[in-house]
Amino acid sequence: MQGLMMDNYPLTIGALVRRAALLFPRREIVSRRPDKTIHRTTFAVVEERARRLSAALRAMGLQRGDRIATLAWNHADHLAAYYGIPSGGYVTHTLNLRLHPDDLAFIATHGGDRAIIVDEVLLPLLEKFRDRTPIEHVLVMRTSDAPLPAYAMDFDTVVANAQLDGSEFPDLDERSAAGMCYTSGTTGKPKGVLYSHRSTCLHTLSECLPSALGLTERDSVLAIVPMFHANAWGLPFASAMMGARQIMPGPHLDANSLLELIRQERVTMIAGVPTIMLGLLAALDANPTAYDVSSVRIAVIGGSAVPESLIRSLSTRYGIEVLQGWGLTETSPLASVGSVPPEMDGADADTLFRYRARQGRVAPFIEIRARSEDNTLALWDGMAMGELEVRGSWVLAAYYNAENGASRFTADGWFKTGDIASIHSDGSIEIRDRSKDVIKSGGEWISSVALENALMGHPAVAEATVIAVAEARWQERPLAVVVLKPGATVTHHELVAFLELQFPKWWMPDATEFVDVIPKTSAGKFLKMALRERFARRLLDG
Amino acid sequence: MQGLMMDNYPLTIGALVRRAALLFPRREIVSRRPDKTIHRTTFAVVEERARRLSAALRAMGLQRGDRIATLAWNHADHLAAYYGIPSGGYVTHTLNLRLHPDDLAFIATHGGDRAIIVDEVLLPLLEKFRDRTPIEHVLVMRTSDAPLPAYAMDFDTVVANAQLDGSEFPDLDERSAAGMCYTSGTTGKPKGVLYSHRSTCLHTLSECLPSALGLTERDSVLAIVPMFHANAWGLPFASAMMGARQIMPGPHLDANSLLELIRQERVTMIAGVPTIMLGLLAALDANPTAYDVSSVRIAVIGGSAVPESLIRSLSTRYGIEVLQGWGLTETSPLASVGSVPPEMDGADADTLFRYRARQGRVAPFIEIRARSEDNTLALWDGMAMGELEVRGSWVLAAYYNAENGASRFTADGWFKTGDIASIHSDGSIEIRDRSKDVIKSGGEWISSVALENALMGHPAVAEATVIAVAEARWQERPLAVVVLKPGATVTHHELVAFLELQFPKWWMPDATEFVDVIPKTSAGKFLKMALRERFARRLLDG
Repeated sequence: MQGLMMDNYPLTIGALVRRAALLFPRREIVSRRPDKTIHRTTFAVVEERARRLSAALRAMGLQRGDRIATLAWNHADHLAAYYGIPSGGYVTHTLNLRLHPDDLAFIATHGGDRAIIVDEVLLPLLEKFRDRTPIEHVLVMRTSDAPLPAYAMDFDTVVANAQLDGSEFPDLDERSAAGMCYTSGTTGKPKGVLYSHRSTCLHTLSECLPSALGLTERDSVLAIVPMFHANAWGLPFASAMMGARQIMPGPHLDANSLLELIRQERVTMIAGVPTIMLGLLAALDANPTAYDVSSVRIAVIGGSAVPESLIRSLSTRYGIEVLQGWGLTETSPLASVGSVPPEMDGADADTLFRYRARQGRVAPFIEIRARSEDNTLALWDGMAMGELEVRGSWVLAAYYNAENGASRFTADGWFKTGDIASIHSDGSIEIRDRSKDVIKSGGEWISSVALENALMGHPAVAEATVIAVAEARWQERPLAVVVLKPGATVTHHELVAFLELQFPKWWMPDATEFVDVIPKTSAGKFLKMALRERFARRLLDG
Repeated sequence: MQGLMMDNYPLTIGALVRRAALLFPRREIVSRRPDKTIHRTTFAVVEERARRLSAALRAMGLQRGDRIATLAWNHADHLAAYYGIPSGGYVTHTLNLRLHPDDLAFIATHGGDRAIIVDEVLLPLLEKFRDRTPIEHVLVMRTSDAPLPAYAMDFDTVVANAQLDGSEFPDLDERSAAGMCYTSGTTGKPKGVLYSHRSTCLHTLSECLPSALGLTERDSVLAIVPMFHANAWGLPFASAMMGARQIMPGPHLDANSLLELIRQERVTMIAGVPTIMLGLLAALDANPTAYDVSSVRIAVIGGSAVPESLIRSLSTRYGIEVLQGWGLTETSPLASVGSVPPEMDGADADTLFRYRARQGRVAPFIEIRARSEDNTLALWDGMAMGELEVRGSWVLAAYYNAENGASRFTADGWFKTGDIASIHSDGSIEIRDRSKDVIKSGGEWISSVALENALMGHPAVAEATVIAVAEARWQERPLAVVVLKPGATVTHHELVAFLELQFPKWWMPDATEFVDVIPKTSAGKFLKMALRERFARRLLDG
């Protein structure tokens, strides 16, 4: 027996955007331009530009489902593209401007991009790979009067000249594709995730809940996470749903620029990866009176496990509460958030910070389980480690035309995340490692994440990572790689003594390498692969 | 081009309930029994009882989609039925215990109920109509040791003896029916609304947003609205999603019992219709020191337009902020909520209270428009009145096997709500009347709701309603029907002088009838139909 509700009313990005234009027309979108000047506009203007873009794409002969790439920093016109492309029935394919041109050529070709909307400042990058892609149309979001290349059109002109007839946001099947994002996997070719309107809308509803962001129309949201990383964690859609003000940093992601923007625009919510937040913290600590972050009520941090020391420092020194999110590009991305249950009320600060270092409990309509190395499901006891498997309404079902994509799914259709975690009895997740990074020592697992987050709590340590290196007796052993704070000194033995307070002896790194910088992925995560290659023979030789 | 996400992962009540049992197992469900004692249990227990009930229904031979009626007050076992029936693939058909047995016989028969779960204290009511229905199985939720009738089974025993095999919450199509509720329309036969799992889940997500209830796992929710009225406004599902504690009043809905429960259980959120809240306010005012409502952060009020004076009194005298919701049984019910936009920040208290007397802005994935009497769409200018039409993800698409049901829909598929409203430029709704109650005077509309809510702000008035009565010259004219506060006196002319401060002269009631009581519908709304009959000739004769 079927229900008799409007179950055919589709969950679409167009519905979100139309409603936002009706209810929140004057809500501000603030962008920093490449020349550091500030650009201000409103939701009503962005929505009209979105409709005009949709009309222009149709006039160019683009068809429903065609992929339209963007290669851009976070700013209002990128947002107009974000809203206009899927609402028009096309698919936004966000390209990661930090990738190598060869990878971009592969991704734009594999994705079948027919058009691209690109920042003028990124044209030099585009020119390195455009001729190796099927891209037919190039729209440039200009920030200077420099002449355009012959193959390109001016985004502003195209939008201004678009003919509106009211059909710019057509009725769409909620399962139709809305966005595409390739994961920059460390092994194999990049793989494409193809979001649907439905998955995006459900992710957005869930993300705005009080147990997640608790976003309101009084928030001013600064997404430091780029719009080319898993849809800036969905914040452009969440802001449209709740009517939040959006502050967009453009290309200026250095700590000083961000802290200035936070102060000037009275930002209430910032969102970014741990390395970005560590940078903000270092800048604040170096010059605590230079900035004003009192408007910030919450820092949403995800992308990799957040060191407890970062959570503690932001909270105790600057009054910024950290909300940790967990997920992957393949989970839209937010699958769980680290809200603190009432059972923890009254706990001491140390206990609370330890709890907040976990990755939280799953959202509604998301399920997890952890599979141990022996292929059984791990108990939810906070100790057993296993690879997290996930399924739910905004989890990918298959990669786009990918070879070997199926290997990432279980026989019963759960997605294998590659994250090694323990699940606590209250359902909270504690990420222990990436499966490729976990250290297998004498048949047991050592969490590199736990060790490195502890090391980053040592007063002399600016950044730390722990990698597995081959060793004759135990197969693999941990090696610490540490960047010291300016002027600080510490020895390997002192660091081990510090770690021994928290972890068993057999987890102790066999050695510490002190380096000037830890290489990072384009997403700001530690590039352990490079370090493992560099230090591969460190213990075997040593 | 379709997305490649798990768009087949269904939105089901079972998914909500399973997750709640995993994440919030110890969260409390507090119920008041008929003998006024308090019963305490946990979500884990309720969820297990839900699964056992599902298994028991299957063992009785009930099939997917079969309707299982409930005839019960709000309490933990009714909640177990709420969760277990739809999660098992059956359809919960909540019967309104305030209806006449003839109506209940019609509704249970029209709905095709095969089983009923009934409160022991309501058996006398059931016996008045059971033999006129297809009900085969009667499960009694007992609160005494009295022997059961021969035709009935003991709910506790049935649940205790159920055999669990893990298949109690089967995979379901999200469009399958989950719940059924008949509207007690004042004209024609009652009509059945058939909720789907999808519509219920989407309504729940939306309802929990910060712009709506902003429900959290630190809330203790007292749904005064009965579980047989539009699913207690979805609060049992919202509480499961967010992990809120649920406080259930059983049959004790008098102001004193409710205020005691609020104090004892430190309730943070109450939800009920204006007449119930007026009763609470009167009891508080009569004896302000007898109660303690300091734990209550929010009163959710809906079902009919909330008088501004009630909002003002609860806020200024008792620190309880009112959140007004608008909707109907046909809209699940919450279609809009009266949150205050940041544009109003800094406004004076009077302006804010006037704004909060509106019915708010629509939820995501809900759309409204207002159709004027001349069949054009009314401007969103806050003045033009029209009948609200609505469509969206949790709006009904058709009544269940109803004659003339189609007449409630426009040609393009919007539901005609029967509510007359103005829509303001920011999208906020101001309900002016029910279409059957609006007063048509000389070709213009007079809002009976505006007049009666103003009258209820007069210090001498306890309750007031304004009805249309036939009149020779103007066709219809307003007549006020007023219940005075104990000991208070006021004349018709004094009331008119009071109203003239706010409304045009031609809106003034031609007369005022002072009565001891205003009859109400089973949902606590003024029964204007009865008053119109009683005073039909008042002006023609007068």
